[in-house]
Amino acid sequence: MKNCIIIQSGGPTTAINASLAGVIHAAREAGYDHIYGAVNGIVGVLSQNVIDLSERVAADDRFLEKLVRTPAMYLGSCRMRMPDPKAEPAIYDTLYGYFRSLDVKAFFGIGGNDSMDTVAKLSSYFNSRNADISVIGVPKTIDNDLFATDHTPGFGSAAKYVATSMREMAYDTMIYPVKSITIVEIMGRDSGWLTAASALARTEGLPAPQLIYLPEVPFSVENCIADTKQILKKRNSVMIAVSEGIKDKDGEYIASADAKEDKFGHKMLSGTGKAIEHILGNALGIKIRSVELNIPQRCGIHLASKTDLDEAYQLGEAAVLLAKEGISGRMVVIERKDTFDYQVGYSSVPVSEVANGIKKVPREWINERGNDVTEEMISYLSPLIQGEVKLTYSNGLPEFLPIDHLTDTIQD
Amino acid sequence: MKNCIIIQSGGPTTAINASLAGVIHAAREAGYDHIYGAVNGIVGVLSQNVIDLSERVAADDRFLEKLVRTPAMYLGSCRMRMPDPKAEPAIYDTLYGYFRSLDVKAFFGIGGNDSMDTVAKLSSYFNSRNADISVIGVPKTIDNDLFATDHTPGFGSAAKYVATSMREMAYDTMIYPVKSITIVEIMGRDSGWLTAASALARTEGLPAPQLIYLPEVPFSVENCIADTKQILKKRNSVMIAVSEGIKDKDGEYIASADAKEDKFGHKMLSGTGKAIEHILGNALGIKIRSVELNIPQRCGIHLASKTDLDEAYQLGEAAVLLAKEGISGRMVVIERKDTFDYQVGYSSVPVSEVANGIKKVPREWINERGNDVTEEMISYLSPLIQGEVKLTYSNGLPEFLPIDHLTDTIQD
Repeated sequence: MKNCIIIQSGGPTTAINASLAGVIHAAREAGYDHIYGAVNGIVGVLSQNVIDLSERVAADDRFLEKLVRTPAMYLGSCRMRMPDPKAEPAIYDTLYGYFRSLDVKAFFGIGGNDSMDTVAKLSSYFNSRNADISVIGVPKTIDNDLFATDHTPGFGSAAKYVATSMREMAYDTMIYPVKSITIVEIMGRDSGWLTAASALARTEGLPAPQLIYLPEVPFSVENCIADTKQILKKRNSVMIAVSEGIKDKDGEYIASADAKEDKFGHKMLSGTGKAIEHILGNALGIKIRSVELNIPQRCGIHLASKTDLDEAYQLGEAAVLLAKEGISGRMVVIERKDTFDYQVGYSSVPVSEVANGIKKVPREWINERGNDVTEEMISYLSPLIQGEVKLTYSNGLPEFLPIDHLTDTIQD
Repeated sequence: MKNCIIIQSGGPTTAINASLAGVIHAAREAGYDHIYGAVNGIVGVLSQNVIDLSERVAADDRFLEKLVRTPAMYLGSCRMRMPDPKAEPAIYDTLYGYFRSLDVKAFFGIGGNDSMDTVAKLSSYFNSRNADISVIGVPKTIDNDLFATDHTPGFGSAAKYVATSMREMAYDTMIYPVKSITIVEIMGRDSGWLTAASALARTEGLPAPQLIYLPEVPFSVENCIADTKQILKKRNSVMIAVSEGIKDKDGEYIASADAKEDKFGHKMLSGTGKAIEHILGNALGIKIRSVELNIPQRCGIHLASKTDLDEAYQLGEAAVLLAKEGISGRMVVIERKDTFDYQVGYSSVPVSEVANGIKKVPREWINERGNDVTEEMISYLSPLIQGEVKLTYSNGLPEFLPIDHLTDTIQD
C-alpha cells in the first residue's frame, strides 16, 4: 500500500482547486491507495487534521469536476513558515513519524512562495533522512510573480476577471456627457502583472483604460496629473488602472502617503485608488471616483479562464508523474512552446530556484513614460484569458462543493 | 409615416438595454417607420442629437440580441431635470416642434425616478396641446425602490451579482483558521433591497453573510459590535453585508461620521464599509477588511439574471402596445401573479403615481434585531435571480455593441 498527502497554502485563487483535482486524478491513476488532504496547509499536517480525498471521489463521481469549479481553497490555507530543518529538526521528526504511520510516499504542496519554501525544506529534510518520500511543488498565485514558470495558475483567471470588469465599467463610465475620472485599483503589491491585464479590455475600439501604472516604475504624481489633463482635452471620461503596490521615487507606497489617523490615532491605509482619487480630485476638481476590485478578483470563479483551469489541472497531474518516478524537491512549471500559436508544455525545476524570489514585469514591457504597457505585454497576456468555464447553477447561484471540513466553526 | 423616439436616463443597469431592445422590436412590429434614439437622454432630444435605431437593426440582424447583452446604456444618460411645463413652456414648444419635424407619434422614456418625472411632464404638456403623441415610461433601477411595480428591471441582475460575489467571497474568507471579519458594502442610498439580496448567498449550508444591515433600520454601533462578538464565539470568520445608506438613530450617515479631512481641508467620505471596518477594527482588534462592490454590481452583465433581462425586454414591448393604443402618461409595471409558482404579468399605472417616491423595504421583512432579513424577503427575492444569460465571447472577453455614438470624444 502507498499513500500520498496534499496541502494548499498561501492566498486563494480560482485555479488552485483545479490543481488539487489534477493531483487527485493522477494519483488515483498512479495507484496511490489513500489520497490525504491536510486541512489548513502544513498546520493540518502538524495537527494531524487530514481528510481522505480518495473516499470523497469514490462517494461522488462528479467530485473532481465540482472541485475544479469551486473557488478559493478546498483544503483551507495557512500562513505558517516552517523552520530550518537543520536548526529545528524536532518538528520534522514528528512529521516524518506521522507520514510513516500513514504510509505516505509523496507530498504535494500547491501554493505560492511560502509553500515552495515548505516544499524545499521538507524535501531537504527527507533527503537527509534518506526517506522514500517525494516532495513536489505546484505553483499558484494571481500575482504571476514566480520565477521559472512562463506564468502561474490562477493568474489567467484573475486577469480575465480584471479585463472583463474593466470593459463593463468602461461602458458604465462613458454614458454621461461630463468630464469624469475613474480609478481602478488592482491587486499586486510587488509586481504589476495583474494590473497590466487591464489593457486587455481595449478591444473592439474601446479606449479604456487610458492610463496604467505598475509598481515596477516609480509613480510620479506630477506626471499622472499632466497625463490625465492631456487625455481630458480629447475625451470626457478617463479610466486609470493602478496597482495597489505603486510607490513614489523614494520607495514610499502612494497609499501610505495618503494615510490618515483615525480618532484613536491609528494610521489608516485608505488604499492606493483612494489616494489617487484624492490627489487627482484636488488637482483637477472634476467628478472622480475609485473602485478597488478587491478579493472578488481572486475568487471570481464565474469568470475563470478555461486555459488557466486546464493548465492548473494538468500541472497537478504533472506533479504526480514526477513523484511516481521518485523525483523530489522540484516544482512543476509551465513552458510556453510557441508564442504565435500559443502552446504550452510542462516541466520542472529545483524548488530552491524559485522559493522567495519575485518576478517583476520587464521594464521593456512598460512604455517609456511609465503609464501604459507595450504590445509585447498584450501578446504575452492574451492567450492566458482564453476560454470560458461553464459553472453549474442551482437556484440562480453557482454550485460549489461544501467546505464544512474547514475549521471555521469552533468546536465547543 | 409615423415614427417614435426613445431615451434612456438615470444610472446604468444591466437590464436597461434589454428594455430598449424590447421597445425597438415591438415598435418595428407595430409599424413605426423610424425609431429614433436620443443620445444622452432628454439632452439629446433638446440638442437634436439622435440616431436612427431602425437603420442599425436593418444593418445587422443580430443588433437586438447584442444590445440585450451590452451593459450600461447604449443611448447614454443625463441627469437633467425638466422644468415645470406650465412655468417654462418655451423649452417644450421647441421640443414639440422638433417632434413634429420628425413625425414622432410616441416617446418612450426608460429610466428611474428622474426619467419618470420627465415622462410625466412631457405627457402633461402634450395633453395640454392636444398633441397626438403618446408618452410612456419604462422603469429601471438596481435599487428596486419604485412604487407600483412588484420589482424593477435591473434589480434582479444586480441582486444576482451581489449574491454570487458574496458566495465566492465567503469561500475566500473561510480558508484561514484565524478570526476575521469581512464587511461588504452594497449600493442602496435610501433602500436596502440590494443589500438584502446578499442573504441569497446562504444556500447549500453556507453560513455567510451572518449580519445584514439595511438603511430602513437605524444602525447601532453598539449592537453591531455585540452581534459580531457573539458570532465570533462560534465561528472564525464573520461576513457583514451593509447598505451604503445606513444611518444612525439621529439620521446621520455612518459613512459621514467617519469622514476625515484631507490636507486641503476637504471632507472625505471614506465609505460605509470602511467606516464600519474602522469601528469594528478598533473595538475588536482582529483581522478585518472591507469590500465595496461598487459600480461592477450595476454593470456586471456577465452575471445578469435571465429572468431580469427577459422581463425588461417584455416591459419594453408592453410600452409600445400602450402607445399603439394611443395611451399616454403611464408607466409599465411588473405584477407578480403567483408568489409560490413565480409568474408575472405586465400592466401600467399613471406615471404621476410613481415619480419621486421611494419604496422602502417593509419593516416586517427585516428581523426584530435589525441585523438580518426574514424568510418572506428571501421568497420575494429568489425568483428574480433565476436563469443565466449566455454572452458571446471574443478573444476571451464578452462582446458588446460599440458605443462610438456617445459624445465621449470631444470634437475639435
